[in-house]
Formats: sequence, C-alpha cells, structure tokens
Amino acid sequence: MLRVGINGFGTIGKRVADAVRAQPDMRVAGVAKRSPNYEAEVALDRGYALYSAADDGATPFEDAGLPVEGGVHDLVVESDIVVDATPSGVGAQNKGIYEAHDTPAIFQGGEDADVAEVSFNARANYDDAIGADFVRVVSCNTTGLSRLLAPLKENYGVENVRVTLVRRGGDPSDTGRGPINDTLPDPIAIPSHHGPDVQTVFPDVRITTMGLKVPSTLMHTHSLNVTLESEPDVDEVRDLFADESRLFLLPERLGIDGAGKLKEYTSDAGRPRGDVWENCIWDESLTMDGADLYLFQAIHQEADVVPENVDAVRAIADAATKEESVERTNEALGVGS
Amino acid sequence: MLRVGINGFGTIGKRVADAVRAQPDMRVAGVAKRSPNYEAEVALDRGYALYSAADDGATPFEDAGLPVEGGVHDLVVESDIVVDATPSGVGAQNKGIYEAHDTPAIFQGGEDADVAEVSFNARANYDDAIGADFVRVVSCNTTGLSRLLAPLKENYGVENVRVTLVRRGGDPSDTGRGPINDTLPDPIAIPSHHGPDVQTVFPDVRITTMGLKVPSTLMHTHSLNVTLESEPDVDEVRDLFADESRLFLLPERLGIDGAGKLKEYTSDAGRPRGDVWENCIWDESLTMDGADLYLFQAIHQEADVVPENVDAVRAIADAATKEESVERTNEALGVGS
Amino acid sequence: MLRVGINGFGTIGKRVADAVRAQPDMRVAGVAKRSPNYEAEVALDRGYALYSAADDGATPFEDAGLPVEGGVHDLVVESDIVVDATPSGVGAQNKGIYEAHDTPAIFQGGEDADVAEVSFNARANYDDAIGADFVRVVSCNTTGLSRLLAPLKENYGVENVRVTLVRRGGDPSDTGRGPINDTLPDPIAIPSHHGPDVQTVFPDVRITTMGLKVPSTLMHTHSLNVTLESEPDVDEVRDLFADESRLFLLPERLGIDGAGKLKEYTSDAGRPRGDVWENCIWDESLTMDGADLYLFQAIHQEADVVPENVDAVRAIADAATKEESVERTNEALGVGS
Amino acid sequence: MLRVGINGFGTIGKRVADAVRAQPDMRVAGVAKRSPNYEAEVALDRGYALYSAADDGATPFEDAGLPVEGGVHDLVVESDIVVDATPSGVGAQNKGIYEAHDTPAIFQGGEDADVAEVSFNARANYDDAIGADFVRVVSCNTTGLSRLLAPLKENYGVENVRVTLVRRGGDPSDTGRGPINDTLPDPIAIPSHHGPDVQTVFPDVRITTMGLKVPSTLMHTHSLNVTLESEPDVDEVRDLFADESRLFLLPERLGIDGAGKLKEYTSDAGRPRGDVWENCIWDESLTMDGADLYLFQAIHQEADVVPENVDAVRAIADAATKEESVERTNEALGVGS
Ligand SMILES: NC(=O)c1ccc[n+]([C@@H]2O[C@H](COP(=O)([O-])OP(=O)(O)OC[C@H]3O[C@@H](n4cnc5c(N)ncnc54)[C@H](O)[C@@H]3O)[C@@H](O)[C@H]2O)c1
Ligand SMILES: NC(=O)c1ccc[n+]([C@@H]2O[C@H](COP(=O)([O-])OP(=O)(O)OC[C@H]3O[C@@H](n4cnc5c(N)ncnc54)[C@H](O)[C@@H]3O)[C@@H](O)[C@H]2O)c1
Ligand SMILES: NC(=O)c1ccc[n+]([C@@H]2O[C@H](COP(=O)([O-])OP(=O)(O)OC[C@H]3O[C@@H](n4cnc5c(N)ncnc54)[C@H](O)[C@@H]3O)[C@@H](O)[C@H]2O)c1
Ligand SMILES: NC(=O)c1ccc[n+]([C@@H]2O[C@H](COP(=O)([O-])OP(=O)(O)OC[C@H]3O[C@@H](n4cnc5c(N)ncnc54)[C@H](O)[C@@H]3O)[C@@H](O)[C@H]2O)c1
Repeated sequence: MLRVGINGFGTIGKRVADAVRAQPDMRVAGVAKRSPNYEAEVALDRGYALYSAADDGATPFEDAGLPVEGGVHDLVVESDIVVDATPSGVGAQNKGIYEAHDTPAIFQGGEDADVAEVSFNARANYDDAIGADFVRVVSCNTTGLSRLLAPLKENYGVENVRVTLVRRGGDPSDTGRGPINDTLPDPIAIPSHHGPDVQTVFPDVRITTMGLKVPSTLMHTHSLNVTLESEPDVDEVRDLFADESRLFLLPERLGIDGAGKLKEYTSDAGRPRGDVWENCIWDESLTMDGADLYLFQAIHQEADVVPENVDAVRAIADAATKEESVERTNEALGVGS
Repeated sequence: MLRVGINGFGTIGKRVADAVRAQPDMRVAGVAKRSPNYEAEVALDRGYALYSAADDGATPFEDAGLPVEGGVHDLVVESDIVVDATPSGVGAQNKGIYEAHDTPAIFQGGEDADVAEVSFNARANYDDAIGADFVRVVSCNTTGLSRLLAPLKENYGVENVRVTLVRRGGDPSDTGRGPINDTLPDPIAIPSHHGPDVQTVFPDVRITTMGLKVPSTLMHTHSLNVTLESEPDVDEVRDLFADESRLFLLPERLGIDGAGKLKEYTSDAGRPRGDVWENCIWDESLTMDGADLYLFQAIHQEADVVPENVDAVRAIADAATKEESVERTNEALGVGS
Repeated sequence: MLRVGINGFGTIGKRVADAVRAQPDMRVAGVAKRSPNYEAEVALDRGYALYSAADDGATPFEDAGLPVEGGVHDLVVESDIVVDATPSGVGAQNKGIYEAHDTPAIFQGGEDADVAEVSFNARANYDDAIGADFVRVVSCNTTGLSRLLAPLKENYGVENVRVTLVRRGGDPSDTGRGPINDTLPDPIAIPSHHGPDVQTVFPDVRITTMGLKVPSTLMHTHSLNVTLESEPDVDEVRDLFADESRLFLLPERLGIDGAGKLKEYTSDAGRPRGDVWENCIWDESLTMDGADLYLFQAIHQEADVVPENVDAVRAIADAATKEESVERTNEALGVGS
Repeated sequence: MLRVGINGFGTIGKRVADAVRAQPDMRVAGVAKRSPNYEAEVALDRGYALYSAADDGATPFEDAGLPVEGGVHDLVVESDIVVDATPSGVGAQNKGIYEAHDTPAIFQGGEDADVAEVSFNARANYDDAIGADFVRVVSCNTTGLSRLLAPLKENYGVENVRVTLVRRGGDPSDTGRGPINDTLPDPIAIPSHHGPDVQTVFPDVRITTMGLKVPSTLMHTHSLNVTLESEPDVDEVRDLFADESRLFLLPERLGIDGAGKLKEYTSDAGRPRGDVWENCIWDESLTMDGADLYLFQAIHQEADVVPENVDAVRAIADAATKEESVERTNEALGVGS
C-alpha cells in the first residue's frame, strides 16, 4: 500500500486525492491546505487526515472547529510519495521540504520544467519516471497534446504540428477572473509556452502553438493540424485513436456540440464532478488533406492530468509497468468507459 | 411499489427519473423521449425502459441501434402515475393521453396553471394534491419563493413581498441561448409572471416580482424583501430557516461567493450532477430593518423541483402524509445533508 | 475661461476632458496620466497638453516618443480647478498636492465621502458646492439614484427605497475582471455601500440597496422600488420624469430590450463613444401599486457622471446658477436630445 | 452623383448608408427597412428617405408616426445601384426586383456565391466587378482573409493556408444569441465554409479553415498560418503589411490586448460607432518559421465590409479605377488613419 500525501487541496489536489483513494494499491496519507473553506469540509467528510499549510499553523482551522493532524512537514513524514498540487510557483518553493525528508514528489504543470528530472505523460514517457525523485506531470493542455501525438509519431511520423488553443478564461469557481466579453490572444507573441512544453516530452517535435483566452469556464478547445510523414487515410487514423484508452471519439449521433453538453453527458453518467479524464475528439472533425490531419478536441482542464498523477506515483515507486499502471488507473476510475 | 412513468427525459425528466429510482416505494416504469441523443444513451445505461415520443415512432432510435419498448401510450399503460417533463406547452397537449388512460399526471412549471387542479409545493400545500388527477409542480423560481414564504407566513404574517429575480440566461447545455453580454429586464413590464405564479400557491399574498436575464448558466439568484406583519429579530428568522429541511443557510466560513463555488461544493460532496435541491440563503445577507426582511438566495433551476415531483407522486397516490413524504424523499436523495 | 486640469486620463478622465473642451466657458489646461498607452495617443491627437504622473517622470513617455509638458505639479499650476479621475483611493493621496497649490479639486465616487466637503449631484444639491474647495462627484450608481429620488422627494415625499443593483462585472476594456459565468451577491452583506452613499446626498432618506455583479460589461441595471408618501397615478410620475433633462424614458416602440441595443442606438445617433449620459428608464416598466413605485433603469457607468463633473466645476467657481449650468452642460454635450 | 439605394437598414445597411453619404461622388437615394424601431428613428434623423419593406406596407411606420416614401420598388426606381443588406438568404429573394428594374445590385456575404457574377474584395479583384450587374461583397471573415492573402500571394506565393476563426457568438445587440458559457466548434466538420468562400476570390489557393463560436460580441479573431512559397524574413512581411491601407499593425506600445481595448481606442479616436474598418494584426504576433508565417488578427465583423461595399458601387458604375476608388473611400471615411 503506497502512502500518498497531497500537498495543496484545490482543483487538482482534491481530484488526485479521490483518484488515489480509488486505487487498490494506494491510500491517501493526508491532505494539506491553507484555509478552512468548503474544501476543508469536503476533505474531512471524505475521511482524509487534514494538515494545515497556513502560515499560522493550525489556528485558522481550530477557530473554524476543524481538527488538523499537523503541518506540511508532518504530512511528508507520513507519506511515501507526495503529490504537490499547490498554486503555480509554490511547488518549487516546497521542493526543499521534500528533499529534507528524502521523499519523492510529483509537481504539476504550473511549475517550470526544471523543477523535476522528467516532464511526465504516461502514454509518452512513463519509463523515464521509473525510480525518479522528482517528476512533473505536464499541464492539462500539454497532456492533451502528448496523448495525441504519441500514437501519431509512432505510426506515421510527425513533421509539423500547429495548434490553436482556445482556452477557458478560468475554472468554474474562479469568480475573479476574466475576460467577460473579449477574445484575447494570450500570449500575443507566438509560440505560446505550450509548444516548448510539449517539447519537454517530445524533444524533437516541430510544433507551433498559438494561445487565446475566451469567456468560458468549462473546457479548453484545441483546433489542431498535424502534418504527418506519411499519408494514412482518415479511417486508419480514426481506428488508431479508437484504440487509445485516454482518447474518446465523440460520435456525431450523441449530438454533443460543445463542452456544456459534454459535461452534462459525463455528469449524467454519474462520473464524480462530471470529470472528463479523456481527450474528447469530435469524430466528425477528423479530416485528412494529403499528409495534413485536422481535428478539434476538448480538454477538461481540471481532470485530464488526474490519471497521469496516479500513474506517476507508480512509476516513481517502480510499482508497475506502464501498461499495468495505465490499466489499473483506468479501471479504478472508469477512464475510457 | 408505485410505477412512475416519465414522459420527456431532458433536464428535469432525467433528474426526476433518478430521484424516483432512489425511493423505496417507487420504481421507474419507463421514460419517453424524442431523439436518440446522449440522454437516450444515459437512459439505457441506467436500465430505464425507453419509449419513443418521436413523430415517426421507433425509427430514429432503431437507426441509432437503441432498443425501445413502444410509444408514449405504451408507457402510460405501464404507469400508475406519469410525470410529464416535456417542454413548456407540450404538457398541455399531452393531457388528453393521460385522460384517455385515466392515469393521473404531474405537469411542470412551464405549463399554465389551469392545466391542473392544483399548483403544488410540498411545503406549502401538499394536502391539496392528495388524490388529485392532475397536479402542476410550480417552476423552480416559484418553488424557491414558496418554500421561503410558507414559514414566514405561518410565523410572522406577510404584508408585502418584493423580489428581483436575476435569472440565468439558459441551462449549462443550452448553447443556443443568450444574452452573451447584456443584462435584460425580462419581461420589461412589472410584475413578471413569477408573482402571479406564487399566488397560485398563496392566493392572498401581496407580491411584486421583477425579472432580469443575465449571461450566466448556473443558478438563479433572488434579491428578496419581505415586509412582515411583525418584527422578529434576525436571529429568530435565522433559527426559523435553519429548521426547514429544504432551506440551506450558507455559512460565511465556507467562502462561497456565488453559484460557481456552490456547485463546486455540492459536486465535491458527491451529489449526483452536483445538484442543489435546497434554496441556498447566504447567512451573511440575512437582515432585518424594522419589519423588513432582506436576503439573497440562490436557486438551482435544474434541481429544486425534483424532490417536489417525488412528493407530488405520493400526494396523488395518497401514499404518505406530508411529513412522511418529505422526510422519505429527503432521506432517499440526501436533501438537507 | 476656466482652466480645468484633468489628473488621471482613463475611463472617466478622458470623457470629462472632452466634455470640458465642449463647454463655451472652459478649456482643458492639460491631462496627466501614468503610461504611454493608446490613451496617451488619444490625448495628443485631441491636442491636450500631456503631463506625466509616472513615478519616473517623463521617461516612459519620451521613450515612446510622446512629448510631455511636465509632471502633476506643473499641471496643477496651470489649472484653476483640477478634476481628479485617478483610480479609487489615489485621489485621497493626491489631495495634498491640490492643497499645496491652493487649487480646488473635484474627486470621483471611488473616494471615501470624507475626502471632500460635499458629495455632489447637480440635480440634488448643486448649491452646496458653490465656492467649495473640495467636491466629490458621487459614483455612477449613486448619481443615477440621486437624479431619480430628487424629483420624487420634492413632489411626493419618499418613505422607503429598495434597490437591487445588477452591476456589470467590469468596463468593456477591463479584460482582467470577472466573473465569467456567475452571478455574485456583492457584497453579500446588506445593505451594499450604495445606500449609505445615497445618504451622503440625501441624509434623511431611508434606503436599502442590494448589489450583485454579473458577467456583462455595458451598463448597470437597477431594479427599483420606492414607497412614496402619497399615491400619484403612474402617468403623473411619467410626466414628472419626462420633465427631467437627465432622465430618459425609453419608449416601448424603439424595441430596446437591454444595454446592447441602447448603446447601439446612441452610437448610431453619433454620440461620442456611444455615451449615455442620462438614466434610461424603461417606460413600460413604470408601475404604481398603491404608494409603491416600481421601475427598471439602465445606468451607463462610464458616462452619467460626466455632466455632473462639468457642473461641479461651475459650482466651485460660482460661475453659474444650477439651472444655467445644467442647461449649458446639456446643450454643449447634447444631453437629453 | 451616383444614387445608391440601401435595402435593409440593419447592422451592415446603416453603416453602408453613412459611408455612401460621406463619399463626394455618391448620395443615399433612400433606405428600406421592415420595422419602425430605433433604427428607423436614426434613418430619419440622418435625413435618409425611408421606404417600407414591411409586408403590410407603410402601416407600421405610419402607426409609429414615421413618414415613409414608398415601398422597395419605389426605392429601386430612385436608385442607380442598390446595396442589398437584408438578412442572409433574403437578398437572393430580392434579386428578381432588381432584375425587373434593370438596376444593378450588391449583395452581402450571407448570400450564396451564385447570387452574383463576382465575389468581390477591392484589394483582390476590383476589376472583375467593373460593369457587372450583380456583385457579392464577401463576408467579414473572407474580406479579412482576402486582404491579407492578396499581398502575400503577389509577393511570395502561397502554398497552404490554415486558419482557426474564433468567432464572436453574436453582434453586440443580438441579445437572443448564445453561447453564454461554451466554446463551440462551429461547424464541427472541417473545413468551415470560410475556406471555400475565400476560394471564390482566389480560386487556386489551398486553404483549410476551422471555425469556433465563443461568448463574446466584439470582434472575430483569426489565428493564422500561411505556408509561403519563399522564405522572406519577418521584417519584410511587416513592411509589406505596413504598406497596405486596410491592414493595421497594432504596435505593442499601445497596450491593446484584445477587442475591448481596440474598440475603446477607435471610439476614443472619434470614429463613428467606434468602427474598425481595417484588419488589425498584432505586430508582436508576426512570426516566420521557415516558410511558415503565423499571426493573430482581429476583424470587426460589423465594419470591415463597409468600405468594400463603397468600392463595389464604383466598380459596377465603372466610375473609378481600383486605386482611385480605394483611396477616395479611405479618405472619405478615415480608413487607415
Ligand atoms: N486548475 C486547472 O485547471 C489545472 C490544470 C492542470 C494543472 N494545474 C496546475 O496544478 C497546480 C494547482 O492548481 P490548482 O488549479 O489546483 O490550484 P488551486 O488554487 O485550485 O489549489 C491550490 C491549493 O493549494 C493550497 N495552497 C496554497 N499555498 C499553499 C502552500 N504554500 N502549501 C500548501 N498548500 C497551499 C491552496 O489552499 C489550495 O488548496 C498548479 O501548478 C496548476 O498550474 C491546474
Ligand atoms: N430546465 C429548467 O431549469 C426547468 C426548471 C423548472 C421547470 N422546468 C420545466 O420543466 C419542463 C421541462 O423542461 P426541461 O428544461 O426539462 O426541458 P428539456 O428541453 O431539457 O427536455 C424536454 C424533454 O422532452 C422531450 N420531448 C419533447 N417533445 C416531447 C413530446 N411531444 N413528448 C415526449 N417528450 C417530448 C425532449 O426530447 C426532451 O427529452 C418545462 O415545463 C419547463 O418549464 C424546467
Ligand atoms: N469606470 C467607471 O465606470 C466609473 C464610474 C464612476 C466613477 N468612477 C470613479 O472614477 C475614478 C476613476 O476611475 P476610472 O474607471 O476612470 O479609472 P481608470 O483606471 O480607467 O483610469 C485611471 C487613470 O488614472 C491614471 N493614474 C493612475 N494613478 C495615477 C496617479 N497617481 N496620478 C495620476 N494619474 C494616475 C491612470 O493612468 C489612468 O489613466 C475612480 O474613483 C472610480 O471609482 C469610475
Ligand atoms: N452583422 C455582421 O456582422 C455582418 C458582417 C458581414 C456581412 N453580413 C451580412 O450582411 C447581411 C445583413 O446582415 P445584418 O447583420 O446587417 O442583418 P440585420 O438583421 O442587422 O439587418 C437586416 C435589415 O434588413 C431588414 N430586412 C429584413 N427583411 C427585409 C426585406 N425582405 N426587405 C428589406 N429589408 C429587410 C431588417 O429590417 C434589417 O433592417 C447578411 O447577408 C449578413 O450575412 C453581416
């Protein structure tokens, strides 16, 4: 039983905690967070041991009547591996704590690549993380792109990748973020950081990414072009994708026109938080023009990195092969079904 | 075991079906819908018998490879009571079918009040629906207002009610509805239909409602003023509300500033679809100024009428007293916990 | 010719500058701003003398090739009166500068009331500002409420005012502000600051305001109830409002359902920036129920305070009576026509 | 003096009318519209002769007290050329009227290409429209793409074009359109109609367009990749674009991050309705990678086709060469300055 501590219990941390809990070979050692808000309540309802990451220790939690087990150091002591899901940049600051306890840790995509030895995507480079001390699970967008490029690269070769990322302005509960009524090239300069980030996973891929931010909160949408090194027909590509457990081809018949209906579908299906762990590719959009593949995919920013974090735990612990881990994670969560 | 048929399996219908399934004394006789989209898939995954309401019978479903048991008439035959959750106005057209089969039916708030003998809210007038043939569960907004006014009326008397309803422009999956960037008085004329609709439940209440439509999809928000006939202090009112199982007082400590965080909270808590069946009153907003009560409440349009439909089934069947039914419904669903 | 300096050339400052320029008895002494962005370009195109309020003096402007005349102190020296339109709170910090030069100044609604001797609305209390050293033009919402309450108070007496302010989340160019998809009670506590702010103009009015923030950028919308001390019929009230030059009754015939069409109308009409200086009251919404008046009005946050600033200049300079000033301002800008 | 009639006085029609009025060699023969709303008021305030396109003739206008000169046929009689700016599809229905009167007409991009002999963009194919009977000014997006591709084609050759069009969900006054909180691939199938539409102007260009719809109202944004036939460096391309009168390179210094600030800038500059007639290319986004050009541009859907309509009038009348017409139009409107 791997004991996994979660430092940072927000959008990503709470999902990773629940995903770890669902695994047969792991348990949640505890979760650390800064403030006694509704998410602290949820942690306790779930039965997670709660640790305070607040500057003034247990006080704010005690004032709110919420029992805590200690601070971040105490949590690290209880953990074989820590998943750090604190806000961008805070992970790097926390690294010293993990080093001090000689405890391996997983960082998230908000950290710079050099925080860890390997930028991780289970489909693309699981083996690179075996036995590593520090691993960074790449961001939601990079995860979505890596899952798609891996099989294309293996089967057809990839000559050039051009992606426009139409990103949601904020998560659904980010009430302070905009824009309200605008479409922002973001960044204006090209490429956006996503291209270079994909290259931390596939160092030799030629890729140009262009980012925009729009007033929606549900998912990112990628408009994607890949120039392949060969010219498969579109049905071959369709079959290739259909075989990938973390790619979901949305059939036209379902009548799903965007992220609203898609999340309604997964919520109806009873998934926790309506989470969409898979890349969702609109089947109808799959198009080949010579060696050029075009498609649209939707990426649930809050969810797609969750199974990747679980796999990263097993890779670090050398507790399973890539195939075993991915299958175990998928099965425990219901990914791909 | 009451056999409940659901005619119309959309936003409301699918929730009522799941709520019926969760009751110890009911089962879902089947569900009827018009098109073989993602919601049809969900119905079959749940194990609901599927009936076609399409103009061309079973054909569209068969073409999509989805098995159907018959048409709407067949569903009515299998049902002791039908919940009609078809779009506004269609319910009235369906009434003849239920009459032909002598099967009692429950309509939704999109229908005119005269479609049924009683406009129903469990807290306010459960007994009026006992043994009725046709009952209309009032709309989400009217349900929210009725639950609040009932205890105020009983305890303090109500002299005048003034409500501004800041309504979401559409449900989360309504991708065709606007406005995108506007705040619309809707209707411009005062009062909106909500006031008279509340009077179908409380005929003698003086109430003026003003409606607006804004570009958000998650919940309606009510800004409310009730002039009482006496002058309780605010803590009395707080205690009164705290005793109501379908009113939830949002404590300041949770840090919930709007519908985004509220739905995140209920999703985190594991509620199906993150549904919020209760009126959510911001505790911090509760204010008394003389005999004037002021508060903000959020109403989850897709969810608050669901327990009311379940109670209406029992009322029609005379299968439980008001207190028994409300408690049984709450317990089966997890309302108020 | 009154020489008016504008300190802070943003949303409000640039409009006040243009309005001052349009007056027969005033001229723009110069404008100060912090950064050489597009608005600096506009200032120079207009022929305004540009002053730097940047911490490092003229440097950023010179680097961008934009000529500046000096710093804020230099601008104050050139001015008989300064309009301070810097961001909330900065005005109070600037007060010392104006005092040092013994130059009267006008602050905006983002400052606390105690920054000035009088909280000003031309319709309500012009005379209080005659000869004052420091005047605060109340905020857009308070201006909108004061213009409406003044004639009601004078003619019928006002017993109680209840307003729900459905506020735009940000100005059209505020790309960093939210919410994207939420309706936020803001503040959650009741009353919002608007009620007390109205009382800086009408100290003895009983008023409760409830504020919300929604994802739109064009205008604020007020849902308003005034309990009068007498019971005029609705046509009397309509006539009363029709006589007020800064209230505009939107006739039903125009087909204007919200702020989008309203701003389209004023843009079509050729108004600078499509500005709406008047309160826009939907005629169709005017309703009397006993002594209770109900209505909806739209307030163009960026524009309604502009004529008030102009009048405040004349009041301070004792350069015209209230009637003369309001008429001169209206005529020069095109208010009410 | 060319007499130009405008049939359809909505978003496009009213702008074209004002643009025609501003030309030294044209006058507005009159404008036809269907309903006596605020735009009818604007037409009369401008002094345009008003014609009724209502099914019941002058009646609705007379009821509203607005004088009309006749019906559409009467307007055509008064016109040398008609600009048809009725809603998509209505133009084709109107064609018979223009034929019956032997009056040449200009249609808009909402019509199918076969409504006219030539699909027109002044920069790309002015001469094709000289003396034509029926001309279609291509849509806002196609206009924006044509202006950009013409100089690239002439100077470097174009091998392949890939565009993601992030389209506004509706115009600012379209209060009924969505989506409110979603990003919709629209259409889901690739290519969108924009690619083939560009090919009505450049028949031999290889182009793939992917369309999306987002909840913003101000402008369309294009994320663009052009594979050229040669490899100019980025400054050459910059200079090429700088020479084009209807391309505007947004300098970084202005601090314009999206459509909100851009429209604020043009409104501040005093342009009618804040209209942006030019393609706005973010200078900072211009990037060359080998033969691949990448950039972001913003297209003001309501405005960019306006100067094109004016040029189309001159082309049909053979009243000026391409260079003369473009210069005269630009000068009269202020395009490019
Ligand atoms: N939100 C997304 O969609 C998303 C997607 C992929 C990756 N990520 C990445 O995941 C990471 C976490 O993002 P998030 O959206 O979950 O953030 P969040 O703000 O939702 O949650 C962060 C949590 O960390 C806690 N925290 C803050 N400072 C802390 C500290 N010093 N020690 C311990 N806990 C602390 C906060 O209380 C909160 O519980 C970031 O690197 C982000 O870039 C986010
Ligand atoms: N959506 C809400 O938030 C909400 C809240 C309270 C009440 N209501 C009311 O509930 C009712 C249903 O609304 P909804 O939002 O669930 O609608 P919906 O459009 O989501 O679902 C309607 C369902 O009825 C089916 N249908 C359409 N015509 C039919 C017919 N002739 N026979 C059988 N089925 C048919 C559709 O296929 C769909 O499954 C309306 O009266 C509405 O006013 C809706
Ligand atoms: N925007 C509105 O809708 C609105 C409506 C009514 C009242 N107000 C009030 O008007 C005031 C100005 O608001 P705004 O929206 O115009 O702000 P803004 O941010 O649009 O503009 C502020 C301007 O002040 C400049 N500035 C910043 N610091 C300065 C300093 N120290 N010295 C000189 N200039 C400085 C900035 O460069 C900018 O040009 C605030 O008090 C606000 O509350 C705003
Ligand atoms: N709105 C845009 O951003 C935009 C941009 C480029 C091209 N276009 C195209 O321009 C055309 C007009 O679009 P719009 O947005 O201006 O439409 P609109 O709806 O704003 O205006 C249409 C006008 O036509 C009038 N009308 C309707 N039926 C008529 C009839 N039978 N006879 C005469 N007048 C009639 C209406 O009263 C209205 O005044 C469409 O082909 C559209 O695709 C629109």
